[in-house]
Amino acid sequence: MTTGVRDPREIAHWDDEVDVLVVGLGAAGAAAAVEAACAGAETLVLERAGGGGGTSAMSGGVLYLGGGTALQKTCGFEDTPDAMFRYLMASCGESPDEAKLRLYCEGSVEHYAWIVAQGVPFKAVFYDGCSGEPPTDDGLVWSGSERAYPFRDIAAPAPRGHVPRMEHQTGPLLMQKLCAAVASSPARSALNHRCVALVQEPDGSVIGAVAETFGEERALRARRGVILTTGGFIHDDAMIAAHAPLVGKCNIRVGAEGDDGSGIRLGVAAGAGTLHMDAASISLPATQPWGLKRGVLVNAQGQRFINEDAYYGRLGEWALFRHGGRAWLVVDDEVFEKPDYPREVAAVGETPADLERELRLPPGSLEATLALYNRHAERGEDPLFHKAESYVKPLTRPPYGAFDCTTENSIYAAFTLGGLATDPDGRVLDPEGRPLPGLFAAGRATSGLSVGGYSSGLSLGDATFFGRRAGRCAATG
Amino acid sequence: MTTGVRDPREIAHWDDEVDVLVVGLGAAGAAAAVEAACAGAETLVLERAGGGGGTSAMSGGVLYLGGGTALQKTCGFEDTPDAMFRYLMASCGESPDEAKLRLYCEGSVEHYAWIVAQGVPFKAVFYDGCSGEPPTDDGLVWSGSERAYPFRDIAAPAPRGHVPRMEHQTGPLLMQKLCAAVASSPARSALNHRCVALVQEPDGSVIGAVAETFGEERALRARRGVILTTGGFIHDDAMIAAHAPLVGKCNIRVGAEGDDGSGIRLGVAAGAGTLHMDAASISLPATQPWGLKRGVLVNAQGQRFINEDAYYGRLGEWALFRHGGRAWLVVDDEVFEKPDYPREVAAVGETPADLERELRLPPGSLEATLALYNRHAERGEDPLFHKAESYVKPLTRPPYGAFDCTTENSIYAAFTLGGLATDPDGRVLDPEGRPLPGLFAAGRATSGLSVGGYSSGLSLGDATFFGRRAGRCAATG
Repeated sequence: MTTGVRDPREIAHWDDEVDVLVVGLGAAGAAAAVEAACAGAETLVLERAGGGGGTSAMSGGVLYLGGGTALQKTCGFEDTPDAMFRYLMASCGESPDEAKLRLYCEGSVEHYAWIVAQGVPFKAVFYDGCSGEPPTDDGLVWSGSERAYPFRDIAAPAPRGHVPRMEHQTGPLLMQKLCAAVASSPARSALNHRCVALVQEPDGSVIGAVAETFGEERALRARRGVILTTGGFIHDDAMIAAHAPLVGKCNIRVGAEGDDGSGIRLGVAAGAGTLHMDAASISLPATQPWGLKRGVLVNAQGQRFINEDAYYGRLGEWALFRHGGRAWLVVDDEVFEKPDYPREVAAVGETPADLERELRLPPGSLEATLALYNRHAERGEDPLFHKAESYVKPLTRPPYGAFDCTTENSIYAAFTLGGLATDPDGRVLDPEGRPLPGLFAAGRATSGLSVGGYSSGLSLGDATFFGRRAGRCAATG
Repeated sequence: MTTGVRDPREIAHWDDEVDVLVVGLGAAGAAAAVEAACAGAETLVLERAGGGGGTSAMSGGVLYLGGGTALQKTCGFEDTPDAMFRYLMASCGESPDEAKLRLYCEGSVEHYAWIVAQGVPFKAVFYDGCSGEPPTDDGLVWSGSERAYPFRDIAAPAPRGHVPRMEHQTGPLLMQKLCAAVASSPARSALNHRCVALVQEPDGSVIGAVAETFGEERALRARRGVILTTGGFIHDDAMIAAHAPLVGKCNIRVGAEGDDGSGIRLGVAAGAGTLHMDAASISLPATQPWGLKRGVLVNAQGQRFINEDAYYGRLGEWALFRHGGRAWLVVDDEVFEKPDYPREVAAVGETPADLERELRLPPGSLEATLALYNRHAERGEDPLFHKAESYVKPLTRPPYGAFDCTTENSIYAAFTLGGLATDPDGRVLDPEGRPLPGLFAAGRATSGLSVGGYSSGLSLGDATFFGRRAGRCAATG
């Protein structure tokens, strides 16, 4: 028997029988369960942990939404689905799923209203000056590279990070509300249930699952569909080595214990295709407070490699995938300030040459980089990488310093973005692009809206948005 | 029914029945068939085209072998399995398969003898001065980055490109001999047979396949195993977009028509896992003749990004994946010569500033790059990228020129390196790493020895080496 798949003939009896079986109670699972139950389907949610929440409850809680949500409007920002779509198509990596992105942008205003209707509170105040979750309980932030080159020229920028009302990380609040919504819906939940296999007819239809709970197996029939919302695979070393080996260098793996790719493997064992398994969100929060964007980020050759005002999800990806996680943020005395995220000062020097020597960069390399940067910065220009003028100033006031942004000594926070191939209704697709009957998925068990250049909130965003769609589709067929 | 998988109950009768069924008659398929047949298994090879050869017959015919082969010795080169192993572990990308690499290096001397025993002729003459296949019928060449940084410090360099005796591309000769070996073995071949499905028991065992020939389906029983040797997926746009989207920018897709990923999809439909689906060999033959290695390769910021004496498989990967396929090779009058592969001169100028302007690089960028390069080159040094001293000379003699190495105007020759997960005996593995009984694979339908930084000959090398192992294992269980 293929690991992870059971023949119905092996099932002596069904321990439970429902219409829709949701596997995993994070943001995607909660959204799927609520919608399936509301559509009239008898729904059961399995969760391997002792309580719901998953990785979503560990997250910053930011939801990337826009197109003119009530929150954006109250905060005085204009946005359109089209501007949001153009930004996301340009910024979400190579070859994102255009059909899903379009649906997401067109449905974003309604989706925000749905999140609010689940009891998630948002304070209609915009917080300026931070990337991603704010230190206050304010509700709207910048959470992407909208105002950075080249995106500012592609679509009118608007802040789209929608943050539940709570200080600091708001993921727990989001999941508290979404789990409460599940609890008050007709859906049932079964905690401490770990899905170990899908039950699949010889014709390929998935008709149930087998879960393990306290050492015993339970066979669970799903008349209309099984929805895998089991998270990504950041905690599975073998999968990381097989699909995204550089990600293994990151010292912070963002994910609940359950993000071991089990649901992706169950889907693949049943014949599902996967997409973009090499993609990951890599956060390198090196330019917070934003004044540090006036520094220059250099690689092991002392060369700049990105506009430093790009979002930290973009900085991290460039630094890791293109420069092997060898990077330093160089500042002068005027730019220097205490970083929000603790990071080591790798070197200090009275001249660029001193700094270069102390960093063991090639002789003359950092000097040449700064000379060229300063020459253009005198006129507020950055013709190499087009950093916004407000962050362009010559670095000429000694002493000079370099913050360590290497994978060894700096925060690189990673989670995976690749996963099962699904259609916009959450149907899991085989390698030929045809649905596997009865099998659905959402959240990080699937390939996300973003397959690169991450903007915060896209993962909770697509998990809940496409989780809802999967729930409805599974319930109503 | 899952596309690509049939239930045995659907098979009314078997049109043919053998021990081992090989799907695809390229290098991997031929090696598998010969070994399976020699081990006493009744063997049938299916080939969708009208004749054997596949992509291998379109290739340069180079086999990456070493560790002290008879050819290396006759040509006067010392090599050891350990040196070969250390080079390959360091150069084959992130997280290559160590167990397979070790077996390959330890078995390489014997494997060369086997290739010779199949009738493939090699002239025991070393050809110096080219990368990959030589313009003569000589038998040994450099086909990797062995003498380039950092590899020259990791393992004693030796040329390992073994080239069948024929002028220019020798793939046709290699495949003529391997197909003849199949023909003179007890194995049977069925041409114009395209495999459309695997036949799989509910317990996961693969017991045969369905092939289409002239509009009709034939069910083929395989008592001991089916071996997928169907090639990579460079010609399947959907798979390229899903797994390796940047590869879609390459203007030369190296592969016979059959490299559409069909065998990979069949395996996945049957529950197989895949590895490194984003990996590809990207050849950018910009430094041939080798004198052009004295030039500097710069990106859209006018920055160098690699030691120019690295093998062209490495140059291409760096240029495409890290710099978006925006690259130019800058030379001066002394370095300038006619390239072996036609390429446009993108700009000419009396000074670096002229050249920079004509290339529309940021003002001062190329000037700064050349100033720093020249400063070190005066002493024969390259502290940024460690190009070998023999290729380091100041670029100071006008006029200056730039060869166009962009994806738009230059050769980027690509084929895929990711594919089905297999163990060292060619058993196809499910997502949990357990064999799918009865299913084997080899060649570019599987994840290769190289998952990056390609050295020529590794693909024909692993296809034949692990093809043989799969054939033996399928035959003998």
